Amino acid sequence: MLWYEMTGRDSDVVVSSRVRLARNLEDYPFGERLNVPMAKEIIEKVKRVFEDEPSYKYVDFSLLDSVQRAAETDRHKVSAEFAAKKTPTAFVESESNQIYIMVLEEDHLRIQSIKAGFALEEAYEAARSADKLIDDKLNIAYDEKLGYLTHCPTNLGTGMRASVMLHLPALTYADGIRSLQNQLAKIGITIRGMWGEGSAADGCLYQMSNQVTLGMSEEDIISKLSGICERVVQQERSLREKLRDNDNGKLTDKIMRAYGTMLYATLIDSSELFRLYADVRLGASLGIIKALKLSSLDKMLISGMVGVIMSENKDVKTPLDRDRARADMIRCILAGGEEQ
Amino acid sequence: MLWYEMTGRDSDVVVSSRVRLARNLEDYPFGERLNVPMAKEIIEKVKRVFEDEPSYKYVDFSLLDSVQRAAETDRHKVSAEFAAKKTPTAFVESESNQIYIMVLEEDHLRIQSIKAGFALEEAYEAARSADKLIDDKLNIAYDEKLGYLTHCPTNLGTGMRASVMLHLPALTYADGIRSLQNQLAKIGITIRGMWGEGSAADGCLYQMSNQVTLGMSEEDIISKLSGICERVVQQERSLREKLRDNDNGKLTDKIMRAYGTMLYATLIDSSELFRLYADVRLGASLGIIKALKLSSLDKMLISGMVGVIMSENKDVKTPLDRDRARADMIRCILAGGEEQ
Repeated sequence: MLWYEMTGRDSDVVVSSRVRLARNLEDYPFGERLNVPMAKEIIEKVKRVFEDEPSYKYVDFSLLDSVQRAAETDRHKVSAEFAAKKTPTAFVESESNQIYIMVLEEDHLRIQSIKAGFALEEAYEAARSADKLIDDKLNIAYDEKLGYLTHCPTNLGTGMRASVMLHLPALTYADGIRSLQNQLAKIGITIRGMWGEGSAADGCLYQMSNQVTLGMSEEDIISKLSGICERVVQQERSLREKLRDNDNGKLTDKIMRAYGTMLYATLIDSSELFRLYADVRLGASLGIIKALKLSSLDKMLISGMVGVIMSENKDVKTPLDRDRARADMIRCILAGGEEQ
Repeated sequence: MLWYEMTGRDSDVVVSSRVRLARNLEDYPFGERLNVPMAKEIIEKVKRVFEDEPSYKYVDFSLLDSVQRAAETDRHKVSAEFAAKKTPTAFVESESNQIYIMVLEEDHLRIQSIKAGFALEEAYEAARSADKLIDDKLNIAYDEKLGYLTHCPTNLGTGMRASVMLHLPALTYADGIRSLQNQLAKIGITIRGMWGEGSAADGCLYQMSNQVTLGMSEEDIISKLSGICERVVQQERSLREKLRDNDNGKLTDKIMRAYGTMLYATLIDSSELFRLYADVRLGASLGIIKALKLSSLDKMLISGMVGVIMSENKDVKTPLDRDRARADMIRCILAGGEEQ
């Protein structure tokens, strides 16, 4: 199962948690200096690491067409840069443990795990379990002083980036994001819109992540980010309660209209889905909309991305077809269809 | 029952049919020259006409407050001019036969009947039945040459005005109203927006009526207006089918969104109700929305008028209260509540 098909802790605010480890093989150069035969050797070696591991599946990414690649990007399994690569790449995943390994992205190996809700430690444990398998069988570039050696120096040290995807409609509507950004920047934490500006236009979704990878242990990074995350969760929750308590009916109306549109519209474009998602998710978390799982909404958002729509509906050709398929999918999820 | 609580013939296009007869008592002057004692005499005489008629109810209109008067206007039982009168007035109605008699509006008596759907003949018969009761007991001003004598010369002759309320969304969207207006003007038929311009903003509702009252019999007027009405009904229907057949999904989407808003919004103002009504009524008549009675929508429109909302919800004070009460009423009607 994918993260957005599950329900995690504090999911009213924390949509998902992600940990990514950058690793490189000692005997091979980085990036541009890596030629095709060398790339194929690395892919072969990684493939062999996982061939006796039944929970892992090896995927020859070069066999995927552009629509399938876009869908895997939309599902957050791979980066857009990885999906766009023309040079040899491979992909290993453990569906049961939400582990996704990109082979030959910027680094030789990018091990990531994405879990539903507030689950940074679980994501770290999952990524570490894959890291251990690799470390046991391959020579990973490591320096006593610099830690893990990486293509980009900003990843030196732990090679780790930990992040949480946050749903912050109340902070967004209260214009509190800029000030939060400034506070967090001072302590080495970045928060930015998931798909751009960070506004209702992209679902009030934000990614909050650590910037420092060197001079701190993995555990310290996780623990620091978790502490900050808890505070942001509290802040968002108290602002939501204020919104609800001060509602003269207009917030409830806005939320119920968004819900009605999800249930009845027959053409919905992506940017509208983001806006509807922001309001309906807020409404569900405040109990204004009853009996609606937050994970259904997250699944709806990911399933509504252009790449996923295209890969799951072969007959979709035009933007209008996509908008119709998106609206159909939304109604189906709300009707309790699919594997909710 | 009121016209908007019933379903009539051709109700996909013809919302209601109305016939009004202007009558005056021979021994009393018109309008300004009628003093209060005379007015009271007339009221007393009319009251006596109906006191032995169990299907008629006499209402002392001067006892109604401004909210109740506005509500009766919104229900089309009385004119706004009548509701605003400070001089003595009275009102007689037959609920079972949809007959409404204004005493001392512009004329001494205005006898009207409003029926659901395309029912001009039935409305005429109903108005005539009341007219007969009155004529049997009172001296009605009548001239061999001029016919019924009325306050305003445009009503001389039959004293009759017949009209139909039409729902013409397809003609409106196809910009066909102006040209229809010009055609009908040439043959003495007027068509105009029910509440103004005649656009989606007022529900795509139009009133079509005869202009000529003199030199034609009542039957001729009814028959001429009926013939024209049938042609307009055909024109609107064929345009609706064209709209549906040429729909690339956008019309269905617009209609279903309007329906979703009716079902889920918690604040709806009057002008939005008119817009939603226009689209949802079109959708119901085309079968895009199933199992929704057109009469439920007509009832919703009338019940959503400010006067009716205020008279049926005593605790409604602010415009926001009204919008909430209106949205509640709409959901209730759609849920099959009330006497649908």
